[in-house]
Amino acid sequence: MVSKSQIKFIKNLQQKKYRTEHKLFVVEGIKVVKELVKANMKPYAIYTTSNAILAEESFKCELISEADLKKISALKTPNNILAVFHQAKAAEIAEDNWLVALDDVRDPGNLGTIIRLCDWFGITNLFCSSQTVDCYNPKTLQATMGSMARVNIVYGNLEDFLQATKIPVYGAFMDGKNVYKEDFTIKKGILVMGNEANGVSPEVEALITKKISIPQFGTKTTESLNVATATAILLNEIRRG
Amino acid sequence: MVSKSQIKFIKNLQQKKYRTEHKLFVVEGIKVVKELVKANMKPYAIYTTSNAILAEESFKCELISEADLKKISALKTPNNILAVFHQAKAAEIAEDNWLVALDDVRDPGNLGTIIRLCDWFGITNLFCSSQTVDCYNPKTLQATMGSMARVNIVYGNLEDFLQATKIPVYGAFMDGKNVYKEDFTIKKGILVMGNEANGVSPEVEALITKKISIPQFGTKTTESLNVATATAILLNEIRRG
Repeated sequence: MVSKSQIKFIKNLQQKKYRTEHKLFVVEGIKVVKELVKANMKPYAIYTTSNAILAEESFKCELISEADLKKISALKTPNNILAVFHQAKAAEIAEDNWLVALDDVRDPGNLGTIIRLCDWFGITNLFCSSQTVDCYNPKTLQATMGSMARVNIVYGNLEDFLQATKIPVYGAFMDGKNVYKEDFTIKKGILVMGNEANGVSPEVEALITKKISIPQFGTKTTESLNVATATAILLNEIRRG
Repeated sequence: MVSKSQIKFIKNLQQKKYRTEHKLFVVEGIKVVKELVKANMKPYAIYTTSNAILAEESFKCELISEADLKKISALKTPNNILAVFHQAKAAEIAEDNWLVALDDVRDPGNLGTIIRLCDWFGITNLFCSSQTVDCYNPKTLQATMGSMARVNIVYGNLEDFLQATKIPVYGAFMDGKNVYKEDFTIKKGILVMGNEANGVSPEVEALITKKISIPQFGTKTTESLNVATATAILLNEIRRG
């Protein structure tokens, strides 16, 4: 049984301002819940409609009715489990390795894919400009899976951050230097990726030391690669050396 | 003014069986309409609520009311233009270059991203297994932009296709050979990418000559990369040589 006030509280967490205020977020589905628990994310409350989950899983959860789950779920067809987790406390960014910085990436799916890519390529720090979409957006969480727990995500003023850094700043541009000719034996740097529609903003561009570009092999068009696929290719280039 | 029967006809095209039956598809938004017209895709009908578009654009379109556009649109908040195009006739696949083959990719966004990647990397042929999501799905079209017009997409039996081919067949697997060690100076081959949840099916796996894999640099997990980002990285590896 979920009380009316709890239902309201959990529904409110669908909005960023409530998530930020309470430092909580919601995920749905057994796979991601298990991943986050395994990665030592701290649960606030876990609700399930499944006796099997209640019996099998080591984490503490509360059995509720399907009607109640429907009330707290953001999904049209709810899974059998919904969990509220505490947001990870952002740690200070160590500049001893490569890191990724996002300049106003707005699509939650793109952000989720980028977090997952950071995790795959051993990038443990992700800096997001203040206007970048919330990493606890449900669509972002859906795309990140458990990676969320392994990447330190910090929101802040990107210009200030780039002005203060002492490591090289690379940025993805349509007219940058061919990335295949770049020397990535260097062990630290920042890769800046821009907004979906406008790319890197002029203010941020002014703080970039190396502009890089992925060569186009097909018919030359004005279209660019999607920011998440471009990040995939560039992180692969950086790590392959 | 759009007649009732036209409204019904266009709404029906939201379903794959009607699109296939009539060999038509629907796109919304000026950018993609312009891209497809420019790429010589043949319009069947174009509707707009904008006098400016009617006056400025060279293609023939019909001025309709916002109420009518809302009736034929699949979007909650319609753009000011909706177009019905003829589906491109699939051409025979020439095996004189690299091509991509998909084994039951189900997410329309992933398919759209992969089509866009093919276009970027000069892959002009894409073979889709019969169970792969329809390339004229609205979410696919949203992700492809104009690339759709530059990639020849063929649906069919993937096993038969791979059995008949004379060029090498590469496939993406978690336990494949490190792709960085692969010699991609060869000028033709097939890259097979698997289903989001299950990867490449055993039947298709049996027809693959080289299993390749993208190295993981972060904490080793059982999670894989998303199929679209993995395709991005592998096509980049193939083209960089």
